[in-house]
Amino acid sequence: MSNGSSNNNNTARFDAARRVAIFGGTHGNEMSGVTLVNLWMQNSAEIQRKGLEIKPFITNPKAVEKCVRYVDTDLNRAFTQENLSATGGDELPYEVQRAQEINRMFGPKGSAEAYDVIFDLHNTTSNMGCTLILESSKDAFNLQMMNYIKKAFAPASCLVLLNEHPLLKYSTSRSVAKHPVGMEVGPQPQGVLRSNIFEAMRVILKHALDFISLFNEGMEFPPCTVEVFRVLERMDYPRDANGNIIAMVHPNLQDCDWEPLNPGDPMFQTFDGKTIHYQGSSTVYPTFINEAAYYEKQQAFVTTRRETLAASAIRKA
Amino acid sequence: MSNGSSNNNNTARFDAARRVAIFGGTHGNEMSGVTLVNLWMQNSAEIQRKGLEIKPFITNPKAVEKCVRYVDTDLNRAFTQENLSATGGDELPYEVQRAQEINRMFGPKGSAEAYDVIFDLHNTTSNMGCTLILESSKDAFNLQMMNYIKKAFAPASCLVLLNEHPLLKYSTSRSVAKHPVGMEVGPQPQGVLRSNIFEAMRVILKHALDFISLFNEGMEFPPCTVEVFRVLERMDYPRDANGNIIAMVHPNLQDCDWEPLNPGDPMFQTFDGKTIHYQGSSTVYPTFINEAAYYEKQQAFVTTRRETLAASAIRKA
Repeated sequence: MSNGSSNNNNTARFDAARRVAIFGGTHGNEMSGVTLVNLWMQNSAEIQRKGLEIKPFITNPKAVEKCVRYVDTDLNRAFTQENLSATGGDELPYEVQRAQEINRMFGPKGSAEAYDVIFDLHNTTSNMGCTLILESSKDAFNLQMMNYIKKAFAPASCLVLLNEHPLLKYSTSRSVAKHPVGMEVGPQPQGVLRSNIFEAMRVILKHALDFISLFNEGMEFPPCTVEVFRVLERMDYPRDANGNIIAMVHPNLQDCDWEPLNPGDPMFQTFDGKTIHYQGSSTVYPTFINEAAYYEKQQAFVTTRRETLAASAIRKA
Repeated sequence: MSNGSSNNNNTARFDAARRVAIFGGTHGNEMSGVTLVNLWMQNSAEIQRKGLEIKPFITNPKAVEKCVRYVDTDLNRAFTQENLSATGGDELPYEVQRAQEINRMFGPKGSAEAYDVIFDLHNTTSNMGCTLILESSKDAFNLQMMNYIKKAFAPASCLVLLNEHPLLKYSTSRSVAKHPVGMEVGPQPQGVLRSNIFEAMRVILKHALDFISLFNEGMEFPPCTVEVFRVLERMDYPRDANGNIIAMVHPNLQDCDWEPLNPGDPMFQTFDGKTIHYQGSSTVYPTFINEAAYYEKQQAFVTTRRETLAASAIRKA
């Protein structure tokens, strides 16, 4: 697959996407992805597409077995160049060893041999609904895929989080692929499988594979625009001098992922009943509100800005 | 406190309840109880009552620190006579050692020296709302407390689960006390603190302590009836020959804790879309539906039967 250089008609050309992976269990207690991938490893009829090699894969089997997010360190932060080139073998943290294995199987990251697309399936305890996560605003192939999925999934809603930030971008499992796609569906507690969340994830993935098939068959996708929410800032819980949390997400903000948070709006409620207001200078759109796994990352929610991105037409090279 | 023997007027007499413990962190990832007890250990003004010795206590500090349910074994199943009398010291599983410590501090279980009341604070991922858990239908003191709390908490709803079953009763942390009271509030994901759940637990505990105060001051509580849901049967997820789960709680049942489940009603949905119906012979009231911690206990939900219990009048001896 080429880098999407435009031709004279401003249509970006990409090679056919022949190798696609579906990752589940990057976090071992996010049950929709774990369960879907395990199912498809037993019977892949549902995800097969003509001319496509599709590999369902459990990325962190030890964490899945224990039903925990990770064993030694967060696999979805482990795909740094430093980790991927680290020596030490069995002495390395489990997830660093595993990142190296995954990079050998599906990468190497940044190379021509890397998989074309990796879908990485996640659940959140936040009330985010169906969310696709992009790492680049410049990837016309992925933007066209988002546009296709959003339309196919309507009238149900599927939002796009753009995780493109000079500091807050992290080294994901899916970053090994040429076109990394995160999928985050919630709310679902860790260790729980809810039928509505499971089915939503399954349907979105179907649409994503359909898009790749149509593209490979030669369909041209005309220019489009995609509404995204660009990550701005991580907000931590209020804490005391010892680092202990002293307030909760305010009931007015809880479960209000993607809704506007205006300067002065309630944001936290202290244990003794005081309200802490948002002090920002403009309206933002919070998400990942009160995600269980982000307490340890000192993040109560992330703010985003709504943007409309333009994607050029695309077609198979 | 006496065993509640009735006098001539059919009023059960109990000694004043002078020693009360509030347990949090029996499961280390159930955040409302952990957070409330930690708060009260720093500042107990809110829970102090005249003539009452009230001890807030973190029962499983190692599990709290790791934000997991338990380290070696479930503390809330560990208070068996076998465990409490086991020798082996440091060789024993952590929670068995801890159960012995707690039994020495707040018991011994079944003795005259045991604490009068233990409240054990729990959260669930199920949509159970506010639930009090009783271990005996014969304890007039606790039944009167339930009646008091339900009335004080109205118009909000607080239900009572009666965990009195020849086989399914388990050996809880609170069972060390003369009057054990479980409190289970949800839905809340493990590792998450939600302000609505936190505040509900706080208010119920306030009413419970008020009841004990009034009792100690000599108030007579007239005969009453209390609606309870008596545990009948544990229902497991459908599984294949290898023990793997092959179906989810049906969307019609999910979040419908305490609502009637009739013979023939949808109960599970298999991953390939088939509905499995409830085959029981009469209407039951399911609860603990899709609780995260009960996957390992092979329990998708528990069925209950609605009953009305009568409690005699009670008064301080």
